[in-house]
Amino acid sequence: MSDKVLIYSRFPKSLMARIGQRYDLIDATGKPPLEIFTRDELKDVRALITAGAQTLKGDVMDMMPTLGAIVCYGTGYDGVDFKAAAERNIIVGHSPGANAASVADLALTLMLTATRRILPADQYLREGGWSSAKPSPLMNPQPGNPGRKVGVYGMGEIGRKIASRAAAFETEVAYYSRSKHDVPYQYMSSLAALVEWCDVLMIAVRAGPDTQHIIDADMLKKLGPNGYVINISRGSVIDQKALVAALTDKTIAGAGLDVFEKEPHAPDALTAFPNVVLTPHIGGHTLDSHVAMQDCVIANLGAYFAGKPLPYAVTA
Amino acid sequence: MSDKVLIYSRFPKSLMARIGQRYDLIDATGKPPLEIFTRDELKDVRALITAGAQTLKGDVMDMMPTLGAIVCYGTGYDGVDFKAAAERNIIVGHSPGANAASVADLALTLMLTATRRILPADQYLREGGWSSAKPSPLMNPQPGNPGRKVGVYGMGEIGRKIASRAAAFETEVAYYSRSKHDVPYQYMSSLAALVEWCDVLMIAVRAGPDTQHIIDADMLKKLGPNGYVINISRGSVIDQKALVAALTDKTIAGAGLDVFEKEPHAPDALTAFPNVVLTPHIGGHTLDSHVAMQDCVIANLGAYFAGKPLPYAVTA
Repeated sequence: MSDKVLIYSRFPKSLMARIGQRYDLIDATGKPPLEIFTRDELKDVRALITAGAQTLKGDVMDMMPTLGAIVCYGTGYDGVDFKAAAERNIIVGHSPGANAASVADLALTLMLTATRRILPADQYLREGGWSSAKPSPLMNPQPGNPGRKVGVYGMGEIGRKIASRAAAFETEVAYYSRSKHDVPYQYMSSLAALVEWCDVLMIAVRAGPDTQHIIDADMLKKLGPNGYVINISRGSVIDQKALVAALTDKTIAGAGLDVFEKEPHAPDALTAFPNVVLTPHIGGHTLDSHVAMQDCVIANLGAYFAGKPLPYAVTA
Repeated sequence: MSDKVLIYSRFPKSLMARIGQRYDLIDATGKPPLEIFTRDELKDVRALITAGAQTLKGDVMDMMPTLGAIVCYGTGYDGVDFKAAAERNIIVGHSPGANAASVADLALTLMLTATRRILPADQYLREGGWSSAKPSPLMNPQPGNPGRKVGVYGMGEIGRKIASRAAAFETEVAYYSRSKHDVPYQYMSSLAALVEWCDVLMIAVRAGPDTQHIIDADMLKKLGPNGYVINISRGSVIDQKALVAALTDKTIAGAGLDVFEKEPHAPDALTAFPNVVLTPHIGGHTLDSHVAMQDCVIANLGAYFAGKPLPYAVTA
């Protein structure tokens, strides 16, 4: 049997190099596989590597009759149609926790950068505003971290790492999650209560149909005019139109976003704001995080091709 | 006797409002006092508020024959000529620790922002590089925080707060300071050893003649091609010319700087680099930090005018 593996999402070649040393990789470069390959080239594909957020339904699975494993590069798997996979006897794996530190680090970086107005400060200096003592409302002093109320939505591995990092800045940390965890942070009984309470909302929830647009106009109003929202989870969790409106009306103070509703696009309405920090979905994008994610992909593929259970199977 | 207080450095008016409610403030707006005031207007000035980094020598003190107290807004006092003050029986006060959290927070923010390349990432997204999949070497994955070696130079209140924050990111923390402190971080026996060891050098030392240009070309070579230097102390600690050369030659990977040799100026050579983050001396510039610094100024002035010892005297 072949050991052919399809790269379904668009990944830089360098990230697939270690995997390519072990398996026969064919790369659809993020395009529909039949735009790049013939049915004949796809018929002996036995596994597929995808970015968890990318839509992957039964129609794509049906292009590869011998497909038996979908391996997500990263912790997320929200784009995968699990029902369709189960019906076709396809198992799904991911890389749990492999990028947790990297993603949590970015969450804190976005919080610190947005609340302290680092982008406008760097620009003010580079454009000569400082040396000419040009008045700038963006340079007015902002609240600091000690005593700041940081609300973490989701208490998985990433949420816990966000909470421990945030606490080191002398903040108060609380969280909301479907269930209470054994962690030293205050548990809020609802997302609304958390949002009402916090100054900075950190979105670290695993995305899915139940979290779609859960941060809507009403929640942003609860966050309030001194509030910031930081999202390193998935773009779908925030109603992006409502967020643009809230930033326009100053319903909230600012935002730090690594994820967007339609990647790789951030709407012009967002990129026009000076009080937001925007990064191109680089949460898991560090050297060590990539190595850890590749380790999980390699371990999942190795087990699958050996006929064993995936060590990092999705158990949803 | 008068309660006239001269504002010697350039401060935004809003920062002096609470002090102005208590004392008769006259504002030199950062200019030589005799450019703004007559000798007669200065002759009954009894105290002076200065930014610690600004040069303040005997010639200025002599413009105010009844001057008895120099009060620094902030923790630093490196610009004050202590010998000249002592000879004139002038006491010096400052605001120790009042801005420590704010300054330490900025140090971490600069480290995270520089090492994770947040400025280029935000720009890449805003300029459409992400949506058009434009290749960018600045977007290559960088080392993450877990295991990163963070070297803290100086273990005063700011250094300690930097260390505890950095440790929360799963880094290794070591420090160098004239003496060993009771802290849970590895002590290095020399600055050179610390710089040789670390990936990120955090400068949190109290500046003075002994630290002038202590981070020179040789030290930057020790820091190495994957090394970053973060400075929230004083610009004088780094040989800025050597730093520009090290960034040009890629002797080091990048820098995060809140302070510069000749403020408020950062040389064009520095502002041209994409791998640096530059902020206009905003370390202590948060709402809570300003309130705490004002509290110290008010307490120092109150004691002085009441003929009591300063609660926050400089004991150098």
